[in-house]
Amino acid sequence: MAAGICYNRLMKTLTDEILRKLIKERPRQSHKGDYGRLLIIAGNEEYGGAGILAASAGVYSGAGLVTLVTAEKNHTSLHARLPEAMVLDFSALTSDLIQSADVILIGPGLGLERPDLLGRVLDEQKEEQWLVIDGSAISLFQAGLKHPDKTVFTPHQKEMERLSGLTIAEQTPEGLQAFADELGAGLVAKSEATKIFFPDMEASLLTLGTPAQATGGMGDTLAGMIAGFLAQFPQKEAVLAATYLHSKIASDLAEEAYVVLPSQIIEKIPQYMKRASLQNG
Amino acid sequence: MAAGICYNRLMKTLTDEILRKLIKERPRQSHKGDYGRLLIIAGNEEYGGAGILAASAGVYSGAGLVTLVTAEKNHTSLHARLPEAMVLDFSALTSDLIQSADVILIGPGLGLERPDLLGRVLDEQKEEQWLVIDGSAISLFQAGLKHPDKTVFTPHQKEMERLSGLTIAEQTPEGLQAFADELGAGLVAKSEATKIFFPDMEASLLTLGTPAQATGGMGDTLAGMIAGFLAQFPQKEAVLAATYLHSKIASDLAEEAYVVLPSQIIEKIPQYMKRASLQNG
Amino acid sequence: MAAGICYNRLMKTLTDEILRKLIKERPRQSHKGDYGRLLIIAGNEEYGGAGILAASAGVYSGAGLVTLVTAEKNHTSLHARLPEAMVLDFSALTSDLIQSADVILIGPGLGLERPDLLGRVLDEQKEEQWLVIDGSAISLFQAGLKHPDKTVFTPHQKEMERLSGLTIAEQTPEGLQAFADELGAGLVAKSEATKIFFPDMEASLLTLGTPAQATGGMGDTLAGMIAGFLAQFPQKEAVLAATYLHSKIASDLAEEAYVVLPSQIIEKIPQYMKRASLQNG
Amino acid sequence: MAAGICYNRLMKTLTDEILRKLIKERPRQSHKGDYGRLLIIAGNEEYGGAGILAASAGVYSGAGLVTLVTAEKNHTSLHARLPEAMVLDFSALTSDLIQSADVILIGPGLGLERPDLLGRVLDEQKEEQWLVIDGSAISLFQAGLKHPDKTVFTPHQKEMERLSGLTIAEQTPEGLQAFADELGAGLVAKSEATKIFFPDMEASLLTLGTPAQATGGMGDTLAGMIAGFLAQFPQKEAVLAATYLHSKIASDLAEEAYVVLPSQIIEKIPQYMKRASLQNG
Repeated sequence: MAAGICYNRLMKTLTDEILRKLIKERPRQSHKGDYGRLLIIAGNEEYGGAGILAASAGVYSGAGLVTLVTAEKNHTSLHARLPEAMVLDFSALTSDLIQSADVILIGPGLGLERPDLLGRVLDEQKEEQWLVIDGSAISLFQAGLKHPDKTVFTPHQKEMERLSGLTIAEQTPEGLQAFADELGAGLVAKSEATKIFFPDMEASLLTLGTPAQATGGMGDTLAGMIAGFLAQFPQKEAVLAATYLHSKIASDLAEEAYVVLPSQIIEKIPQYMKRASLQNG
Repeated sequence: MAAGICYNRLMKTLTDEILRKLIKERPRQSHKGDYGRLLIIAGNEEYGGAGILAASAGVYSGAGLVTLVTAEKNHTSLHARLPEAMVLDFSALTSDLIQSADVILIGPGLGLERPDLLGRVLDEQKEEQWLVIDGSAISLFQAGLKHPDKTVFTPHQKEMERLSGLTIAEQTPEGLQAFADELGAGLVAKSEATKIFFPDMEASLLTLGTPAQATGGMGDTLAGMIAGFLAQFPQKEAVLAATYLHSKIASDLAEEAYVVLPSQIIEKIPQYMKRASLQNG
Repeated sequence: MAAGICYNRLMKTLTDEILRKLIKERPRQSHKGDYGRLLIIAGNEEYGGAGILAASAGVYSGAGLVTLVTAEKNHTSLHARLPEAMVLDFSALTSDLIQSADVILIGPGLGLERPDLLGRVLDEQKEEQWLVIDGSAISLFQAGLKHPDKTVFTPHQKEMERLSGLTIAEQTPEGLQAFADELGAGLVAKSEATKIFFPDMEASLLTLGTPAQATGGMGDTLAGMIAGFLAQFPQKEAVLAATYLHSKIASDLAEEAYVVLPSQIIEKIPQYMKRASLQNG
Repeated sequence: MAAGICYNRLMKTLTDEILRKLIKERPRQSHKGDYGRLLIIAGNEEYGGAGILAASAGVYSGAGLVTLVTAEKNHTSLHARLPEAMVLDFSALTSDLIQSADVILIGPGLGLERPDLLGRVLDEQKEEQWLVIDGSAISLFQAGLKHPDKTVFTPHQKEMERLSGLTIAEQTPEGLQAFADELGAGLVAKSEATKIFFPDMEASLLTLGTPAQATGGMGDTLAGMIAGFLAQFPQKEAVLAATYLHSKIASDLAEEAYVVLPSQIIEKIPQYMKRASLQNG
């Protein structure tokens, strides 16, 4: 198809190579501090599952230490599924907590009723930290707000419309690249053919993916994987690799399932990363 | 047996064909909005498991987005099992929520103490939405209440007696078809030989099924599957297919189990649907 | 050993035969009402897991409908594991609830702080119901209290001492049989060589069993299995069969595990019952 | 490497032999009392998962009875995962509870806000009980506090620095052995090459282990395993064996996983212990 050919010329198609290049065997002499502190701010009273899925994706992706800041109501269900994470209420979000993280993910299932949380992260975050802005936090991000250089937005098409002012028809590779350049941040533009843009970098196209993924919680899981990868590999390629792996696992599972649940993807992450690490180099 | 022969003449026996005809491979260009918003109103303080099972069945059947409106007390146990669903308290059931759904399921484990919920759904629902009325909501449905055309009731024999005025002995295929015509709604008449009636459609008979299914939560699970199927395939055949698949999976599992739990059926749905989609056409 | 030989003369050793004789294939024409309503009163604020294990054992053993009456605090964890059961607080224990059950199990993890619950069950229960008295409820049962004919006590050795006045040394087959006759109830005398006594019935000896079972929650699980079996097969042999199967599964799992968890036993019940039902007759 | 050679001269490298020597087949005539009462004091409002992991490790290691004393907030998530354990709030920690335990573990995820708990354990504990001091409780342990002879500390390098006054560079085998002698307690000095010291015993070195273990909750799990082993085998070798097995399982799982979760290690404990028991002697 014309559009497809056009994309392929402008963009690099993601393949297994991105995993093999990024995911290294871990050095024997290392400890959990080496794999990053990940702070996730996600999950209000209605969308608590989003925070749980994002935190699970972060842990299974190998982040060294994961703290979920979420509505009090979600604490018990988090630990019933994932005792490996730490948990705090929104009221416990201190500057110290923000500044001691290596990566911050804000937004999955956060809702619009606590806009101050994004404001505080943007104000108090340090330049060297990676910041992933997803879901509700994208809707809360208004033109004029400042963000650190190492920021990635993960909007779907309607969130992109609101964020960029580009209608869905205008969300062409050229339009999105121009917007990424202007925004000065990474963009994971989610659609049936997800594309990833960074200022001053060739754009990437995801041709993998399955309609079996079209179910609630997928975006939250992707955001958690991106953050988990950035915690270990603090570079743009981590965003590409996480996005690719998320759809790669889903596609494989979809060989035998009409719908693939996010929690089923999450459980498979460690095996896929291991395989990639053995092929590294 | 005489009764069986008689049934088979009047009704079409459900087979794997209903799955193969209904369940299509999903188009590559699709997203979760295409697979329906399912709103489930279920689970009071005593029967919380019913809401959890119905929501799980909806998600595993492939509904794009599932929201469970249930007693506050059940929110944590839902998310401990199923972070993929959204959850709200009964007090948060707004007209917007009702009207933005593609399918509404009301009744599993709802109890009789909140009759207003059914009243509100019947008043505020839009004509194009499918409505599944199960369990307690059948008991709450009184003669004279109006329901939209696209309504399905899923009574067992005693609920049918109350709903239709037909004694169990009077619940013959002819009697039930006449009642469905009068009611102007679909009927999933649950028994050891479940039958499905719609006005102006040949009735269907389920000859599959296993006494290993005779355990708590089975009806809630069936209701969730019917609603999940309607979210993706908004047509009468979805009701037939979901009912058939529920017993098909149970029968297969019963080859190696004296009792089959609803949650064990739910986990198998995606594989069975996948297989059917590959044989479609 | 002398003691062993002596036992074998006085008692019948339980074998797979008890399962094959009791567990019949379920008739096609049946529904959950045919497999019994089981009411379990168990689990205070400290020992909530006991109620969860007993209810799980009841459901996996095939009881048609299981209601757990337990401390409010345990409701969420029950449903996170077992949405198939219904749950109520102690304050909701009505006469209706007591009298509509086919089998009542009282005691696992109940604690001593609510003696009125046992009193109410003994007062309000109907003659045709089976009653299983376990754990804390054995300690609460005082000489002089009356119980229905169809009662089974499931004490370990110290509970037996308190209940019967027999020291552990005095808990010989003869002594226990005499006590069962006097008490007018069944006794599952739990020890490394569990023995089962009913008035006017040959005693049974369990030679199966594994020290891998020596872990918390095993007794609660056995009590739930006995009650679940009685719900379907309301006869003394159900007590023998459940006790045998509990240790049979544990012994099989212990082939590959140093310690066997109660929840691991529970998951295997349906397969073992199926196998027995196929060999029935 | 020079350092490695030096270590090996001073210390004994742990191998499978430590498991085979310690883990005996359980005698047929035994009950849960024979496998120890384990009391775990762990898990505040933020680090609740630590208590859950430690208790799970204790149960799966075969401790006869495990009670977790933890923040009220963690009770439901514990039982949703592990109904086999008993649970109490910090306010329910009585002298009786402390003194009836065979082994006490204090510290995983306990936080610094309840220093009195450690004080009470140190004051009220009996000489014959084993005591494991982990995590926050190590930070709370101040020079001058007295502990019973049968005490084990499980610090990582920074906790060791605070406890011993030795900088990380000074934490040489000789330095640590001298500190253990002075402290009069066992030391599990956790690092990429964990070492174990007891006064008057040859030190042990763990050469196993994998960077896939570098994730949250690993230390809590190890502490629970050590305590669970001590409950059954109340001798110094239990500490060596539990530490070895923890890394042995992790290494095996890491063959196919980039990151190994603590809960995945826990599930494997019974199989590994069984295998060792069969090779015993």
